[in-house]
Amino acid sequence: MTIDPTKILRLNLPQWQGGDHPDYRIGARVLAAIAPEPLGPEETVAVPEADGGPRPTEQGIVSKQALLSNLAAAKSAIARHSPEAIVTLGGDCLINLAPTAYLSERYGEDLAVLWVDAHPDIMTASEFAHAHAHVLGMLMGIGDADFVDAVPRPVKGSKVLYVGLTETTPYETDFIAKHGMTRLSPEELAGSAEPVLKWLRASGAKKVAVHFDLDVLDPSLYDFLLFHDPNAKPNAFEGVARGRLRFEDVVSILRAVDAEADIVGLAIAEYMPWSAIQLSKSLRTIPLLGG
Amino acid sequence: MTIDPTKILRLNLPQWQGGDHPDYRIGARVLAAIAPEPLGPEETVAVPEADGGPRPTEQGIVSKQALLSNLAAAKSAIARHSPEAIVTLGGDCLINLAPTAYLSERYGEDLAVLWVDAHPDIMTASEFAHAHAHVLGMLMGIGDADFVDAVPRPVKGSKVLYVGLTETTPYETDFIAKHGMTRLSPEELAGSAEPVLKWLRASGAKKVAVHFDLDVLDPSLYDFLLFHDPNAKPNAFEGVARGRLRFEDVVSILRAVDAEADIVGLAIAEYMPWSAIQLSKSLRTIPLLGG
Repeated sequence: MTIDPTKILRLNLPQWQGGDHPDYRIGARVLAAIAPEPLGPEETVAVPEADGGPRPTEQGIVSKQALLSNLAAAKSAIARHSPEAIVTLGGDCLINLAPTAYLSERYGEDLAVLWVDAHPDIMTASEFAHAHAHVLGMLMGIGDADFVDAVPRPVKGSKVLYVGLTETTPYETDFIAKHGMTRLSPEELAGSAEPVLKWLRASGAKKVAVHFDLDVLDPSLYDFLLFHDPNAKPNAFEGVARGRLRFEDVVSILRAVDAEADIVGLAIAEYMPWSAIQLSKSLRTIPLLGG
Repeated sequence: MTIDPTKILRLNLPQWQGGDHPDYRIGARVLAAIAPEPLGPEETVAVPEADGGPRPTEQGIVSKQALLSNLAAAKSAIARHSPEAIVTLGGDCLINLAPTAYLSERYGEDLAVLWVDAHPDIMTASEFAHAHAHVLGMLMGIGDADFVDAVPRPVKGSKVLYVGLTETTPYETDFIAKHGMTRLSPEELAGSAEPVLKWLRASGAKKVAVHFDLDVLDPSLYDFLLFHDPNAKPNAFEGVARGRLRFEDVVSILRAVDAEADIVGLAIAEYMPWSAIQLSKSLRTIPLLGG
């Protein structure tokens, strides 16, 4: 609402290791290319592409060291600017650890977090080895200590609203209730921003960090979601909850929020533009360009 | 074959005015994002996006002044490096005027041009107001004098081979014959590089500049072609020749050429990744990102 656009940091973070899928890196590069050009500072974390080498699991987390290295680079990039707000373009969902940790430290109790996602991202290494599913837990101070170390002021569950969350596992359902988090399914939203505004007013927060995992969108309407991986094994996504929102639904909620509060964080994650990803690989086969 | 990769200039040229379609700019930005990272110098010509203002036609060419300005910027970018070879990522087909003009001046009679395209690109303002259809004519010294001025050493028709060219108009058919240019249709190629190699050997050229207009590809197999414009009017492309090659066909021809000669120029044009283009517009509606 009142953020000076020159004080917004654009952070490009083409991280793929958190989802253990090298194509997230290409998706992040495309997302950075198609986003409106930033009016403030821009930083791009150099994330190496997959080299075919091993991706070791340490303390139950795949590519843990690479992820910690990306995290440190993202923290440094943010620290160089001390921005009022951050737009982060990923990459897998874990891209939002450093940005929201920074915003939580900066704005404290005045910050609410809208987690716009089909999935709650509160697992730990005990439940799943891909850390992109751990990021909100880590932001709340729960999970692998090396990542939680990057969160000096954890976000309280009472300050988190899930927007568009679908079916959860018993572990997730219990976690959400135990930590006083609020959830709004696509059906509870029913195309209206009002339930979000009601929660936001009750929270008392005037600053809002938004996590927008594109998989909150209905995969029957958008071709750029993980579910459309042309190389996925049959049934690869069996049992994985799918989003049921339209892009316009998310935008209208965020615009309503923007009219009542300052959106100080926006992270967009899990973009998989399959046609461009395939062409990217084809380009490597052309002489002079691909070598 | 023997080009030092650090002597290859990567030239990003998000020009859209030559096709009078602002979305070429987004396509060019995506193409630059998904291409293998360059090992040599990289230049990006700053092409402003469409601002909704008029696009005046001068001497029969839409946006002529803007195109001349892009041309001057591309020439300067090339001159700063005096590269041995250039990879140009567009943008509309006219992006290849400055690069091939430079290569023709540098390599002279030793240069052959492979024009991999469903269309011959030899019209003038008398036939069509969009200058992306004029580029090869201009490179041969034929067309608007202000553009032809940028071609100190025109390419001779005998040094041009069309690869994958489909149906041509009577004007085009006559032009091609009159200037001694050679054409190979998809059916004449029949999936083999041999007709290309035979022509190349006969030409005596040892350096090759390749123009790869993606519309040489079969639109029933690739979703990133102009023909798939979701906003095109019904019958907008009626009578426009369509490509009939596969990406792998083009790659196998270029690899065979690369084994016998030095590919010193590669321009890729007319990329229209519609899903990403649509998302690009949607991103502008999100608070904090789109303003």
